[in-house]
Amino acid sequence: MRVSHPDLLVGPETSDDAGVFRIGPNQALVQTLDVITPIFDDPFEFGEIAAANAVSDVYAMGGRPITALNYLACPNPDLPAEIAREILRGGAAKIGEAGAVVLGGHTVEDKELKFGLAVTGLVDPAHMTPNSGARPGDVLVLTKPLGTGVISSAYRKERVAVGSEPYAVALQSMRTLNRAAADAAVAEGVRGMTDVTGFGLTGHAMELALASDVSIEIDTAALPLIPGIRDLLGLGCQTGGGVKNAAYYAARAEIPADWAPIVCDPQTSGGLLIAIAEDRADALLRRLPRDPIEPRVIGRCLPAATSRLRFRT
Amino acid sequence: MRVSHPDLLVGPETSDDAGVFRIGPNQALVQTLDVITPIFDDPFEFGEIAAANAVSDVYAMGGRPITALNYLACPNPDLPAEIAREILRGGAAKIGEAGAVVLGGHTVEDKELKFGLAVTGLVDPAHMTPNSGARPGDVLVLTKPLGTGVISSAYRKERVAVGSEPYAVALQSMRTLNRAAADAAVAEGVRGMTDVTGFGLTGHAMELALASDVSIEIDTAALPLIPGIRDLLGLGCQTGGGVKNAAYYAARAEIPADWAPIVCDPQTSGGLLIAIAEDRADALLRRLPRDPIEPRVIGRCLPAATSRLRFRT
Repeated sequence: MRVSHPDLLVGPETSDDAGVFRIGPNQALVQTLDVITPIFDDPFEFGEIAAANAVSDVYAMGGRPITALNYLACPNPDLPAEIAREILRGGAAKIGEAGAVVLGGHTVEDKELKFGLAVTGLVDPAHMTPNSGARPGDVLVLTKPLGTGVISSAYRKERVAVGSEPYAVALQSMRTLNRAAADAAVAEGVRGMTDVTGFGLTGHAMELALASDVSIEIDTAALPLIPGIRDLLGLGCQTGGGVKNAAYYAARAEIPADWAPIVCDPQTSGGLLIAIAEDRADALLRRLPRDPIEPRVIGRCLPAATSRLRFRT
Repeated sequence: MRVSHPDLLVGPETSDDAGVFRIGPNQALVQTLDVITPIFDDPFEFGEIAAANAVSDVYAMGGRPITALNYLACPNPDLPAEIAREILRGGAAKIGEAGAVVLGGHTVEDKELKFGLAVTGLVDPAHMTPNSGARPGDVLVLTKPLGTGVISSAYRKERVAVGSEPYAVALQSMRTLNRAAADAAVAEGVRGMTDVTGFGLTGHAMELALASDVSIEIDTAALPLIPGIRDLLGLGCQTGGGVKNAAYYAARAEIPADWAPIVCDPQTSGGLLIAIAEDRADALLRRLPRDPIEPRVIGRCLPAATSRLRFRT
């Protein structure tokens, strides 16, 4: 649906991370709504992950989050009130860590537990970081490891245990705000930025390529992965969303068959994919946080060609 | 959960209509999130009703809506894409009528169809209309008829037909924005205002009484009702929420037994309950829209007493 409004800077018809609406000469709202189902079982951590996931879209646009509204879908009366409270407490703690505040929210009955937040941030329109700013020659940096979809499937199938290394790395990664990474990117002159979520690295890299009118080449050997996900994939741990993504992008991107389940794995609270001029890349890598991974260049932007996205082995 | 932030003007711990967060000396965001299940079957009208319902909380705080984010919960793959599109189209049309714009949103799978919106408005903090401003001597005006919960139950039980008078009045009432009513209230110097939604007239009048530290007396003979709801109640058309509200407020308010199912009926996209000085009431009544009802005084505020809310027959 196409809408038009003089203050609408980024609307629903682009595939950008969040909507942007001007409220003053140097000020715009950045807004996003994201709701997820639990990955693991701890309710406080579920709240933290849902909040880090929702707020990420504001960071991906170069914004500073200021407020959030909760959306909690509860299988009443089966869900103990204590669980709901812990989810909300985890969400509020993470929103507080982001420097924002929960203003309220809404709870509904649902067969399946879901939690998410509508997040509002502020951004100077002159300093937004939309998908469309990448240029040929820019390099690409990814700030979190891939594989949260595989891990969540493995957890449901009891193939990873609470406290194991894959579990711990995935949990720590999903709980981590993209705030420090976004600050580093903005400080070093990021050109285009997006966060990697439901469409996997493939889908979000493709959006960046199309919006910026470049082609993208990614070096699979450089991709950061949650430990153990190759073995878990061998055990059949894949999400329905991952299978759908892989089927959809098979004809649209050049993906080696053994990499498809990884680069199409839907991410919850995934990392930022940052396009930056090559001569700024080292400074960016020095400035980025070392947690949850040692950040590195994973690919580069090329002049637009028929093939928009290629994974190189 | 108690949160504290220097810019948080109205937070989740009060029972006000929406959260308010200061972003400048004369400017604050008013934010609310509201999600509902369908009342009737037409998808476009469902979108309109959900949007009018969500945006109402912004009007109830004296705000001007500027943006909205969709939340659509779909029973995939059972729900035809055309239905989902019509719901979103109805929502966007109503948001457009409110002078705001849909920035984006989120769709999830759900066993039950739900639609709602996170709405953001702007308000000058000096001109907010919270629940807490009513004073003894003020009169109360209600701007829409009661009974949408009864009608929705009757519709599901096939006790009201599409196009019948109760159906048409309820539909028209729920689709009507509270915008003109709020504008009239602000222009005539409203003191306290709230919208009547899930807790029924009883619940929201009680919140106004407690927040303003007054007692409220309502004249049942003056209450505007959707035609036919007494008969439909006689046929057992009541919602679960209405039964819960009546049980909860039985010990907290003075409600004649035959009025309890009406004044505790949960409203979708209900009217504004406006507290205004008695000598401004006539001017307010002249300025209020005549649609969906001829507005009238339904009660008054008294000095706070042990009994906070009494329905007089």
